[in-house]
Amino acid sequence: MVGVSGRARTRRLLSAAALSLFAENGYDSTTVDQIAAAAGVARRTFFRYFPTKEDAVFPDHDSTLVKVSLVLEAEGDGEEPITVVCRAIREVLRMYAAEAEVSVARYRLLRQVPALREREIAVVSRYERLFTKYLLAHPSASASPDSPDAPLMAEVSAAAVVAAHNHVLRRWLRGGGTGDAMAQLDHALRAVRDGLVDPRRRMSDRRVVVTVTQAGSGVDEVLDAVRHALN
Amino acid sequence: MVGVSGRARTRRLLSAAALSLFAENGYDSTTVDQIAAAAGVARRTFFRYFPTKEDAVFPDHDSTLVKVSLVLEAEGDGEEPITVVCRAIREVLRMYAAEAEVSVARYRLLRQVPALREREIAVVSRYERLFTKYLLAHPSASASPDSPDAPLMAEVSAAAVVAAHNHVLRRWLRGGGTGDAMAQLDHALRAVRDGLVDPRRRMSDRRVVVTVTQAGSGVDEVLDAVRHALN
Repeated sequence: MVGVSGRARTRRLLSAAALSLFAENGYDSTTVDQIAAAAGVARRTFFRYFPTKEDAVFPDHDSTLVKVSLVLEAEGDGEEPITVVCRAIREVLRMYAAEAEVSVARYRLLRQVPALREREIAVVSRYERLFTKYLLAHPSASASPDSPDAPLMAEVSAAAVVAAHNHVLRRWLRGGGTGDAMAQLDHALRAVRDGLVDPRRRMSDRRVVVTVTQAGSGVDEVLDAVRHALN
Repeated sequence: MVGVSGRARTRRLLSAAALSLFAENGYDSTTVDQIAAAAGVARRTFFRYFPTKEDAVFPDHDSTLVKVSLVLEAEGDGEEPITVVCRAIREVLRMYAAEAEVSVARYRLLRQVPALREREIAVVSRYERLFTKYLLAHPSASASPDSPDAPLMAEVSAAAVVAAHNHVLRRWLRGGGTGDAMAQLDHALRAVRDGLVDPRRRMSDRRVVVTVTQAGSGVDEVLDAVRHALN
């Protein structure tokens, strides 16, 4: 009997064998039998881990989806829902960054095999749907809760966060998986979030300060009055 | 010899036959031979139109991609690039709306067949890539052209526009393809674009008007002064 960590190890072994055979001999000409043999297991064992050959290329998305869900469920009190989503998507990049070499090899493979590229697009769309669902269930405190555009903005915000993640991920993979991917993601998410927070809220942050001083006041007196008004 | 319109007709016929057989007998148990027979053509004719069985479900995306490209190339002078993208994506919704009944039948089929759903996600991602490329090549007049975040914002903006389109499309399909889809899209795009235009530009639209009137002025005098300042 194989324990949980044994299962995880076999899964990883099969995935590594698949990736290296695909890169060596091409995706189409590699069979499940060859992958199983390279990993030292039987053909039927392969299918206990992955329903198809192409699934072996993406072994970690299922467990990452669980991690992402946990972050969403553990939302902090009074936080903007979009902030929680930004924290949750860090789990996805963390998964890629944890094995930079494997991620870069997979990226190169995907650029050559359209079927795998399409599969990844579909896999990544699962995160987007999860975020949309979360944002729908947790309207922003700054938005009018029964705005008819709330479902629209939930979907658009989720798409924007995922696009920012994908942009950072792709740049990092193109660069060979070097550099601090997480820091780059945080920068990108800040830039995007600034554009996603309800505009009315942002407007209300633009307060206008009016100070009234006596005609004939000196510059210092005026500056003092302004400083006082700003504090 | 079959002319261009004959080709288009055969293509449409094959697609309609495929959709109706998939709905009737299930996607997996329908063969290309059955589709060809239902459309009154030979099996090898089918493959002259579609490389695979699943491609017959999406007959119009290739030509719509061409239409979208044409709109992007015909950009108006001095228009914000994001405005041009919003106009271009109308071509995609127009394609669905042109045959509401077929679109609704396909939508119902896709909800039952994950492989087809994934295929559609991949197809739609082609529009997003096209928009990202266009926005990268046409930086917004209101953004600093060499901002290091320009590529990020191009990708995020393209994703936001496509998400708005997908939201409107799905709502319209769920509603059975009734109602003015194009008007709903225009509304959604306006809402999204407001959030995507450079925030600094939006800020500069929030002018502050200060009017100075004599102490003891009547209400009418004050209102006159304000009106004057606003014009």
